[in-house]
Amino acid sequence: MTNDHVTYEPIGTIHSPFESAVDMPIQPAGTDARGTVELRDAYAEGLADLDEFSHCILLYHFHESPDDAALSVEPFLDDRPRGLFATRAPTRPNNVGLSVVAIQAVADATIDVTGVDVVDGTPLLDVKPLVGAFDVPESVSDGWIADSDDAVADRRADDRFR
Amino acid sequence: MTNDHVTYEPIGTIHSPFESAVDMPIQPAGTDARGTVELRDAYAEGLADLDEFSHCILLYHFHESPDDAALSVEPFLDDRPRGLFATRAPTRPNNVGLSVVAIQAVADATIDVTGVDVVDGTPLLDVKPLVGAFDVPESVSDGWIADSDDAVADRRADDRFR
Repeated sequence: MTNDHVTYEPIGTIHSPFESAVDMPIQPAGTDARGTVELRDAYAEGLADLDEFSHCILLYHFHESPDDAALSVEPFLDDRPRGLFATRAPTRPNNVGLSVVAIQAVADATIDVTGVDVVDGTPLLDVKPLVGAFDVPESVSDGWIADSDDAVADRRADDRFR
Repeated sequence: MTNDHVTYEPIGTIHSPFESAVDMPIQPAGTDARGTVELRDAYAEGLADLDEFSHCILLYHFHESPDDAALSVEPFLDDRPRGLFATRAPTRPNNVGLSVVAIQAVADATIDVTGVDVVDGTPLLDVKPLVGAFDVPESVSDGWIADSDDAVADRRADDRFR
């Protein structure tokens, strides 16, 4: 970190069936889409033991998002403006994205996953194992999204954040 | 993103009771520690509606971690080496960290939280709402960590990743 900036170098690429962010599933819950997480070959050793986990967390860069994030946005799942940090909108002050996906197989520098909701070619920043004791609270309240949960599976992205 | 590098600017700071990464709780499950997430004033508007959620995901930079990540590490919770991406070790190719914390209050540009496991002064990169339908699978297998779950609450960090 220099001068209050953090610089990351993508460690690989997420491949998905989605060529465009428009008409893509909104979150993993909305899809069984298979994807492939391809790390650079040099990182293959770091994937050891990951196949014992059911899920992993992908952190990635929303590379198609513009740099001018609004702090109040109308999410795909709602019809009124919400505070940006109470949404998962892809255009943020830092365009970093997070998806929980199911691990199907790990081989060499590649993870086969299901539940992908990112555009093909998305730059990967990190992979972490999903750990129940760390990441899964006993009870979760979803705020405004609770009212729209039933709609997630049917909604698709549009161009509002492009 | 330029030349395959991504540059982020911290949007705020995470304050915690932990002045040093050594002897700190290992993950939120290991602590009820209260913390304060202070965003820059300019981002206050983006916190609207977040108080309706029970938990949020903090993404931050492990600012005390060195740049030379090993791909095989011996985690705090185990006594044999594991692949880095099957651990939550703070020294990674990109030193980005993730914690799920419970929201206690939101006011102006500040979020009061519990379950903090980061060093005081950690640079904040993003805040996202934790959403059950997106982030909480019905069933989670914890891999090698399953055998050590009972130990999480008692373990503390040491200097192995410094």
